[in-house]
Amino acid sequence: MPRYALKIEYNGAPFAGWQRQADQPSVQGAIEAALARLEPRAHTIAAAGRTDAGVHAIGQVAHCDMARDWDPFRLSEALNFHLKPAPVAITACAAVNEDWHARFSAVERRYLFRLLMRRAPAVHDAGQVWQVSRELDIAAMQAGADRLIGRHDFTTFRSSICQAASPVKTLDSFTVSLSQGVSGPEARFELRARSFLHNQVRSFVGTLERVGAGAWSPDDVTAALEARNRAACGPVCPPQGLYLQSVGYPEDPFTA
Amino acid sequence: MPRYALKIEYNGAPFAGWQRQADQPSVQGAIEAALARLEPRAHTIAAAGRTDAGVHAIGQVAHCDMARDWDPFRLSEALNFHLKPAPVAITACAAVNEDWHARFSAVERRYLFRLLMRRAPAVHDAGQVWQVSRELDIAAMQAGADRLIGRHDFTTFRSSICQAASPVKTLDSFTVSLSQGVSGPEARFELRARSFLHNQVRSFVGTLERVGAGAWSPDDVTAALEARNRAACGPVCPPQGLYLQSVGYPEDPFTA
Repeated sequence: MPRYALKIEYNGAPFAGWQRQADQPSVQGAIEAALARLEPRAHTIAAAGRTDAGVHAIGQVAHCDMARDWDPFRLSEALNFHLKPAPVAITACAAVNEDWHARFSAVERRYLFRLLMRRAPAVHDAGQVWQVSRELDIAAMQAGADRLIGRHDFTTFRSSICQAASPVKTLDSFTVSLSQGVSGPEARFELRARSFLHNQVRSFVGTLERVGAGAWSPDDVTAALEARNRAACGPVCPPQGLYLQSVGYPEDPFTA
Repeated sequence: MPRYALKIEYNGAPFAGWQRQADQPSVQGAIEAALARLEPRAHTIAAAGRTDAGVHAIGQVAHCDMARDWDPFRLSEALNFHLKPAPVAITACAAVNEDWHARFSAVERRYLFRLLMRRAPAVHDAGQVWQVSRELDIAAMQAGADRLIGRHDFTTFRSSICQAASPVKTLDSFTVSLSQGVSGPEARFELRARSFLHNQVRSFVGTLERVGAGAWSPDDVTAALEARNRAACGPVCPPQGLYLQSVGYPEDPFTA
């Protein structure tokens, strides 16, 4: 069966997460339903990152297997037509080999977390940022983030229901920067790794927010990391500021 | 009665516009209802710009008259509390003199128009941008915009129901730039003038889109302007990409 890679953007707000569920809306379910409009049968697609409820994507990647050959552009157009009005869009589509796998072929994931720092409630970015009411110390948060870069046992920053075989991961890059959004100052956290543990980004950001507020020092971040104990983590922050930014492959299927 | 200036952000999507209407939701009506929760009686507020249905604001300014003295911060907090869950927020509040008027004291308005240029439907910016399916020529649109800067009779770019006394206005600045949004390339139009005619920005942007697509030349923009005839205008673009960015006063009431 011809296999296609799909680059997918979505707003996570109305979904119980990526993963298909029997009784709740999911991004996977929405796309599989659109595929069934094109080739009527049960479809199962696989994604690079199974995002949680409320988490967004700018560049999620999944693959689907079709019975007939599709022109990739036509396939993306047909899916976008049937996805309406769900806040999900196929932004690129490419034919790939049958051994290419959106999840297992991936060698890099990038996440973005947006944290709006202002008192008045978010309007234009409501549901798309986490909001705190005062400005945080960006340099202190970067100093804390620096303690997390590299290969570590991230047990502290891993959900208790995480199914990864090992808590040891390598965080390749973690930057914290100040960005002026339309609604005010935003702290933007950008992370890059081969793969992430469940709730790892939200555990990091919730902990660094404590550093930015002055309640924790960067040394406290190191101590939490070295504790290798979930109880040592700062508060896990809410999902609505988190975006799966992009997924990397040895060869980008979308620029072939 | 003590008078307060309010800086207001809103998402125009659920509203029939700024102006209070008997049978449809309006931004003015939402704020007046919140004021009535603080001081129970009929309130009438005045705004610098009466935005149309679907038009957003980042920095609208209005004023209200209160029976008792309010701490400005407390007033903004109380209004934001009662405005929920409407997508309207008071982002600043200041006491002003009783002869200060949000509309008549204003000496400058700035508008922003966001035009997303991509094929796949907008997701994160749905309802907050106008979307066209292909990339436009930014330099050509800037060349067209340059023809509109200065003091002109803007009859061509004025709604037939515009109530301004004269079609002659001075456009102080009009820039067109390429911005990389989370969802792809955006053309951003930024305009500054003492005041604008009804539908002027949307008439400009709809006309310049034709220039960016190659259907019109910058000379065609000059010819349309000189025609002083509404029929010479390009298509008026939809409202959802338009933002009232800020309002200028001889002295900024919010930094006193």
